[in-house]
Amino acid sequence: MKIDELADRIRAADRRALARAITLIESARADHRTDAVRLLDALGRDRQALRIGLSGTPGVGKSTFIEAFGLMLTALGKRVAVLAVDPSSARSGGSILGDKTRMERLSREPLAFIRPSPSQTELGGVARRTREAVALCEAAGFDVVLIETVGVGQSETMVAEMADLFVLLLAPAGGDELQGVKRGIMEMADIILVNKADGDLKSQAVRTCADYAGALRLLRKRPQDPDGFPKALTISSIEADGLEQAWDEMTMLADWRRSRGIWERKRADQARFWFREDVRHGLMRRLTEDAALRKRLAELEKAVAEGRIAPAAAATEALAPLQSQRAKDA
Amino acid sequence: MKIDELADRIRAADRRALARAITLIESARADHRTDAVRLLDALGRDRQALRIGLSGTPGVGKSTFIEAFGLMLTALGKRVAVLAVDPSSARSGGSILGDKTRMERLSREPLAFIRPSPSQTELGGVARRTREAVALCEAAGFDVVLIETVGVGQSETMVAEMADLFVLLLAPAGGDELQGVKRGIMEMADIILVNKADGDLKSQAVRTCADYAGALRLLRKRPQDPDGFPKALTISSIEADGLEQAWDEMTMLADWRRSRGIWERKRADQARFWFREDVRHGLMRRLTEDAALRKRLAELEKAVAEGRIAPAAAATEALAPLQSQRAKDA
Repeated sequence: MKIDELADRIRAADRRALARAITLIESARADHRTDAVRLLDALGRDRQALRIGLSGTPGVGKSTFIEAFGLMLTALGKRVAVLAVDPSSARSGGSILGDKTRMERLSREPLAFIRPSPSQTELGGVARRTREAVALCEAAGFDVVLIETVGVGQSETMVAEMADLFVLLLAPAGGDELQGVKRGIMEMADIILVNKADGDLKSQAVRTCADYAGALRLLRKRPQDPDGFPKALTISSIEADGLEQAWDEMTMLADWRRSRGIWERKRADQARFWFREDVRHGLMRRLTEDAALRKRLAELEKAVAEGRIAPAAAATEALAPLQSQRAKDA
Repeated sequence: MKIDELADRIRAADRRALARAITLIESARADHRTDAVRLLDALGRDRQALRIGLSGTPGVGKSTFIEAFGLMLTALGKRVAVLAVDPSSARSGGSILGDKTRMERLSREPLAFIRPSPSQTELGGVARRTREAVALCEAAGFDVVLIETVGVGQSETMVAEMADLFVLLLAPAGGDELQGVKRGIMEMADIILVNKADGDLKSQAVRTCADYAGALRLLRKRPQDPDGFPKALTISSIEADGLEQAWDEMTMLADWRRSRGIWERKRADQARFWFREDVRHGLMRRLTEDAALRKRLAELEKAVAEGRIAPAAAATEALAPLQSQRAKDA
């Protein structure tokens, strides 16, 4: 299929074309990459979804939440895409979203589109591809793009760099339980949702929520927040309770930021961030696609590993050919 | 001073020469950088310290611990260097180690050397420089190098990439308290020390330690660990209690890894990591030191921010001059 035709079909919300395009951007082949770059540019950037980053450690009920939240949104007539950034999925061979059976009902929903994390070992690669998949989903006219992460290493930071809002999902915590929340992530969160506020856990969820609400009040107010944000709420995914309120808070926050130019400024910053990432990555590829340079790089790396040369000195030597090439050119 | 002379004086454990050399590696000036690279290579890599990475959120008593632990080590006749990776210190204008008054006694100790975090805004830069300062301290014959971090963003990962052991310092936790421990950091830790096991907090510290010991047992056993590791211990920095035991555990673990080649393999992996980081950084500098390329890069970045071009397409364009240069060359 021609790139222009693929672009047209994506913009016409053709799901198969979208899936195919995501496969294209995930490909490591150089010719595929050239096509992917052309496609992304051809699609334009006139359509915007609400991009929601979602983090939560395993066991907090992320899949159940996404299913319930997604179904609530599709019931409102919203088109919802679910993507994932999970560098660990490549290691385990599985995927953060598992087989879609974990979100069985949502995956059958015509207004929903679910795509597992690209299977690459390097976080940068996974994140870059997911970010481009987000752009494809926006071009395909989705209203909401949920980007989930399990929070391995720096993945929250990467997801925050492609999301308009960042939601942290927590489980009710007992006194001796590890919540796994790092200060940095607390500060990244726009909304904290304490899940499982149902049955026996309900009162514990309410207490946990109050604890986090208290903790959030201790954080410095950020210029991107209206009064009362970041906010902590309780929800129950299995009883579908509190989900609409959570959605109202998200849209309210998004509207507030849009009306003040904060939304647009953030999107511009994010685009800059990914441009720099792409340049960095491209530079590295350039150095390793030349066979002679790649060989030299491998030799230097071996010398470094064996302690025969300091990393900085080896790097200087590795980059020397580029310099002499420039000098020759001048 | 000539580079060779500076190297000789560092190897002779001259503290002023060491301080001066660290200032040199922290400098952004190109000629300083050339000297720094030469110095690092001239110093060799035949001396090894035990490099201990130390993480802990503010309030757990990190400075107090370092002071007590450092004094215990110097009392044993060990030479101790304390360095820091703290990208946030550049923002606040302060430093993780504050003025040295926070470790007043240790800073007066002839066997100890304390150096605050380099003041750079970018984590990569801070970490690279600290890693080189570690190499300088090793060449100067220190037995132990403590590298502390407050755990902003990815800084633990960076510290883990330059340390032989990773120690996580925690405070006794009540039920409604945020410990701020992320799963990834738990998995990074070789030893967890629950501080403040004294006075009113003692029983709470013991409970917290038991909780973490339990949590550690839930983690998969790593090939780099003997039985019983990772381990959780209680200590009291102010009563200097448990510090020698902690040190015994550290040296035991280090010896175990040394005897199995794990230590050396890890150091080789780390050297490779920093070589790649240096190459990546050097490539980026190359692209931005050429005035014409820098201008083009800025224009493309602006276009990306304004949504006129997709990040990937802009990156392809930014890198095109390098390509045509190569083609011209061929």
